[in-house]
Amino acid sequence: MNEPILRKAQPDYRWQGVDIRAYKDEASAPFRGVTRQVLASAPDLKGELRYFEIAPGGWTTLERHQHAHAVTILRGRGRALVGHEVVEIGALDLVTVPAWAWHQFRAAADQPLGFLCMVDAERDRPQLPSPAERAELEAMPQVAEFFAGS
Amino acid sequence: MNEPILRKAQPDYRWQGVDIRAYKDEASAPFRGVTRQVLASAPDLKGELRYFEIAPGGWTTLERHQHAHAVTILRGRGRALVGHEVVEIGALDLVTVPAWAWHQFRAAADQPLGFLCMVDAERDRPQLPSPAERAELEAMPQVAEFFAGS
Repeated sequence: MNEPILRKAQPDYRWQGVDIRAYKDEASAPFRGVTRQVLASAPDLKGELRYFEIAPGGWTTLERHQHAHAVTILRGRGRALVGHEVVEIGALDLVTVPAWAWHQFRAAADQPLGFLCMVDAERDRPQLPSPAERAELEAMPQVAEFFAGS
Repeated sequence: MNEPILRKAQPDYRWQGVDIRAYKDEASAPFRGVTRQVLASAPDLKGELRYFEIAPGGWTTLERHQHAHAVTILRGRGRALVGHEVVEIGALDLVTVPAWAWHQFRAAADQPLGFLCMVDAERDRPQLPSPAERAELEAMPQVAEFFAGS
């Protein structure tokens, strides 16, 4: 695929020639209100750049994997769980998800959360938590509060 | 280096714990008014994400290399030369610089131009144009106009 040199930004965080895709297969993992746009992916790049947008009150899949994420928030506000830490995030903040850290992003109730995510083009498949792993996370008050969306 | 999970955005496109660096060694190549911040660079990422900012009227080095760039404009306005094409760029536009394309970014006279650039962590060194290559570029009216900054 030959990328065009320029893809103009369109209103509302869309881009010329970039499709809005499903975040992932709905049967494969739980999530709510997430879309995905692939902004850069090419044979001569070892990284990929994707734009994810979470609708107000929505959330990405709680998962972990060997590959790392480098996230740049572009719009809105929300919170992220990375490992056992919960952080408040807003426009232009940078979030690093290291290898094997459980992570989830949640949009605020009243705003979407849009972010760029840089990732290796070749990467392993995410793992979902077992019931025991989920219970272990929920035993931490800050994580329980995060999952509750409060 | 262990990255912190969160680096908060600071006013004016700076980030907590991220140094503003020289764009490149001033003796190595011509440029004007460019700074560099490394937003993501880690052993477990094959890509790097950098934020470059060009002061009003400034410009990056005219160069080419084997590695590709995936650029996302974050602020301001300007123009880019990629190969023989000159494009107008503004916030959130995406620019792809393919392998071996001559390229340069120029900020508008009255605004800075700030952009994210995703690149392979392992990459070749840029080449500068020879006088003959520069003349060949300048023989194209749109490129001559671009270099003149008009």
